[in-house]
Amino acid sequence: MRIDILTLFPEMFQGVFETSILRKANELGAFQYNFVNFRDYTENKHHKVDDYPYGGGAGMVLSPQPIFDAVGAIQQKSKTKPRVILMCPQGETHTQKKSVELSKEEHLVFICGHYEGYDERIREHLATDEISIGDYVLTGGELGAMVVIDSVVRLLPGVLGNEASAPEDSFSTGLLEHPHYTRPADYKGMKVPEVLLSGNHAKIEQWRKQQSLKRTYERRKDLLEHYPLSQTDQEWLNKSDLTDN
Amino acid sequence: MRIDILTLFPEMFQGVFETSILRKANELGAFQYNFVNFRDYTENKHHKVDDYPYGGGAGMVLSPQPIFDAVGAIQQKSKTKPRVILMCPQGETHTQKKSVELSKEEHLVFICGHYEGYDERIREHLATDEISIGDYVLTGGELGAMVVIDSVVRLLPGVLGNEASAPEDSFSTGLLEHPHYTRPADYKGMKVPEVLLSGNHAKIEQWRKQQSLKRTYERRKDLLEHYPLSQTDQEWLNKSDLTDN
Repeated sequence: MRIDILTLFPEMFQGVFETSILRKANELGAFQYNFVNFRDYTENKHHKVDDYPYGGGAGMVLSPQPIFDAVGAIQQKSKTKPRVILMCPQGETHTQKKSVELSKEEHLVFICGHYEGYDERIREHLATDEISIGDYVLTGGELGAMVVIDSVVRLLPGVLGNEASAPEDSFSTGLLEHPHYTRPADYKGMKVPEVLLSGNHAKIEQWRKQQSLKRTYERRKDLLEHYPLSQTDQEWLNKSDLTDN
Repeated sequence: MRIDILTLFPEMFQGVFETSILRKANELGAFQYNFVNFRDYTENKHHKVDDYPYGGGAGMVLSPQPIFDAVGAIQQKSKTKPRVILMCPQGETHTQKKSVELSKEEHLVFICGHYEGYDERIREHLATDEISIGDYVLTGGELGAMVVIDSVVRLLPGVLGNEASAPEDSFSTGLLEHPHYTRPADYKGMKVPEVLLSGNHAKIEQWRKQQSLKRTYERRKDLLEHYPLSQTDQEWLNKSDLTDN
């Protein structure tokens, strides 16, 4: 996978891209990345990337020309038709499903605004996707792009060392994960549940499934709406009377 | 505000913390930050921070001891009772409302796991908050912590240059932002709406409000459920027959 990132602050990405899974994925050849400072594409004398909004108001607006030209240069060199992803609060809320979808692409282009809004023509005529990572306000699109890229790149073949880890993650099974415990069995009086020390694998699996259901019920009922509860699951949820918790 | 960050990868934060709004906020004295590599708190010979899960299964689990001790050392030096925020997929989904709440605290501690899950005792007996930034799987808690910190720190007094910018942001008004346009009025045949060039401020305000409603209706109906629509808003939404779009 190839990823191009349009940003005025390429140095923001350094720590994240040179550490951990992204560095490993890059070294493995699973993905290549390239930063494009779209200020380099400005055609005005002062290399201004933004301008006052038509109609007045606070804040500046990113001009169409540098961004259209920077993406155009990437598209011209690309063998495939890249997805052009605009990071913005008005975009669709990012999900694991979208990460899986994007992980099948050959070429992604991310556009990161900073402070300002985008000229609407970038949204309408250049972007193929608009993504928001959640309902909170960030200073720029850079952190959002890093988040989406991390969640996509870890799904590329060979990137996660333990292949078993990916499908068991939260949001992949549709339920929140069950609790985990490791040694010591008693840490300052806080004890590990007996069942996990029992060696009875059938019971452990059952406990985990039930804890996973319980946690999802208590914290994220919205996820259960899309989860195909078996009859056993439903009976256990009814029996355990979680509404009293 | 003081922010302590427990992480095995402090270098991941460098680019983000030394650029842009976080750097500015730090220079202004609006917030101080400190990284704690909880590996430094391990009491075992090999400085291991994780161990196999009780009950078996793939993946490792972060041990309680180093994290309890690292947070304990921070708490001991703190004059106030810090919020201890565990970044994890099972946490409450982060929102702007939570950012506003956290921006009023004096001291925040973030715990960032990486790859592994946390021993449940950290969740039950140490964390005061558990936050997830969205329904997607990330390699670690670091990016989530950066996202929450960015969204909190920009709300601290004096951090945003243009004080007018904050309340108008998406998710602060309850609606998605209206489209923005800047020069040129005609970019390769793509034109700015006439009304924005009219100089009629009342009409411009009305257009922006309607576009904001329209965009929210089309993209995020869930937000409208919590928005107090005026009679005029409602009439306009009915009249414009957005269901055909």
